[in-house]
This record gives sequence, structure tokens and C-alpha cells, in this order.
Amino acid sequence: MKSSVRVALAITSLVLTLPAQAQFRKPQDAVKYRQSVMSVMGFHMGRLGAVAKGEAKLDPAQANLDASVVRQLSTLPWIGFDASTEDVKSKALPEIWLSPDKFKAAGEKMGQAAVQLQAAAATGDLDRIRAAVGETGKTCKACHDDFKE
Amino acid sequence: MKSSVRVALAITSLVLTLPAQAQFRKPQDAVKYRQSVMSVMGFHMGRLGAVAKGEAKLDPAQANLDASVVRQLSTLPWIGFDASTEDVKSKALPEIWLSPDKFKAAGEKMGQAAVQLQAAAATGDLDRIRAAVGETGKTCKACHDDFKE
Repeated sequence: MKSSVRVALAITSLVLTLPAQAQFRKPQDAVKYRQSVMSVMGFHMGRLGAVAKGEAKLDPAQANLDASVVRQLSTLPWIGFDASTEDVKSKALPEIWLSPDKFKAAGEKMGQAAVQLQAAAATGDLDRIRAAVGETGKTCKACHDDFKE
Repeated sequence: MKSSVRVALAITSLVLTLPAQAQFRKPQDAVKYRQSVMSVMGFHMGRLGAVAKGEAKLDPAQANLDASVVRQLSTLPWIGFDASTEDVKSKALPEIWLSPDKFKAAGEKMGQAAVQLQAAAATGDLDRIRAAVGETGKTCKACHDDFKE
């Protein structure tokens, strides 16, 4: 590898890890942060899932809130997957740090689905909400299958 | 107490507790939910606090995100303080359920401060952000002083 490329990669890697290191006092804090974000997202996805499965009646205002929380939180957990957290016990698989591009792409797919989910919830239309919940759920599952124990 | 008042109070209490019972499978889930929300809020308030204290440089886009997350999450944790969680070990003090009106008012004060915080962050003006972070922080502290161990 050319040394200029090596330097560029080193800088990129520094830039990618610095923010998290600077923001969390210790790796455990980063893990707690990403787990908390995922947990809140999971609850709101769960409420939407119950509506999609017909287990709960559609309350348009609540579905809007749920989708809006999922969308906003979908952008957040990634800084918590800092390389410094690789050795902290959690359900995160090493593949996260072995295949960072694949992990990033999976996260972005979820983020895009969450944007569609919010748009669907805003219509108040059960069929559209059901479809969007299904699509978003698929992106959650795909990422968990590959990157979560 | 008149029996009609007693019935009315019983119904009110039922209505106030039902949504959470219906949404969380067990009291521990409600506790985990509210703690996760508070934890994420705490991180984003912390980043804003560092800016307010001059420990971090103001990044307007990040401050906007932080304030927007704080505002949205400020409306969420309350369903997690269901009466069914009173006996679950946590830092929540019994005063939450002994003085529900006072607790609710404290939560609303925080919510209002968070709206102001988001508005301040949107201006990108450091002095306004600093003041709004201070005001919001006061409402966090006031509620924690009275209701958190």
C-alpha cells in the first residue's frame, strides 16, 4: 500500500473514531448509549408492530409519534459503536468492526426505511402504515441477523 | 370520602395506569423504557452542557440535533412511571406516586424548557443556547432533587 494511502486511511480512521472517544467518557458509556437508543426505538417499533399485526387499534396520533421517534432515533446509535467498545461485553458481534462498510450500509437502510415509515404514519392510512412497518422491520432484522448475537 | 368521589378517583387512577399496563408486558419493561429515554436525553443534554460551559465548541448542527432529541424525548418517559413499577428497584422515589400532580407539573416544566431549548438551538446563538441549557438543566435538577434517589 502506498504510504500516502496508508496515511489517508489512518486519518480517516482517526476522524471516524475521535468523535465517539471525545463524547463518551468510557467505552461502557458508548455501549449504554447505543443500547438505550435501540431500546426506546424497539418499544416504539413494537407499538407500531402491534398495529400492523392488528393486535392494537390504529391511533393515528400515537402512530405519528411512534414513527417520528423511530425516525429521529434511527440516526443516533451509530456513534455508540465506536471501535473502543469492541471488547465491552454486549450482543454486538465483531462483524460490526470487521465489515464497517456493510454495517454502515445496513444502518443507512434502516434510516431510509424510517423516513418512509414516518411519511406513511403521517397519512394515517393503515395499509400504508402496515407496509412501512413491515419494510422497516425487515431492515431491523437484517442488521440484527448479521451484527447482533 | 364520598363514595362517588372514591369511584371517580378509582376510575381516574385506572385510566392513568391502564395505558402503561397495556403497553409494557411487565413493570420492569416500563422501568427500562423510562431509564433508556432518560439516559439518551442525558447524553444529549451533556453535549449541550459542555457547549454551554465552554468545554466544547458550538457546532450549530449538532446543537440543533441535541436540542431536538431532548425536546422529543422530554415527552416520552412518563408512561414508564406507572404505579405498577413502584416496587421495582430503581432510583425513582415513592414521592412520584405520592405526589403525582407535583411530579406531573415538574415533568411539564421540563417539557416547556425543552421547547425553548430547541428554539434557542435553532438560532445558533451561543448566548441564547447557554441560557436555555441553563434553564432546562434547572428543571432536570429540580425534578431529580424531589423524585430521584
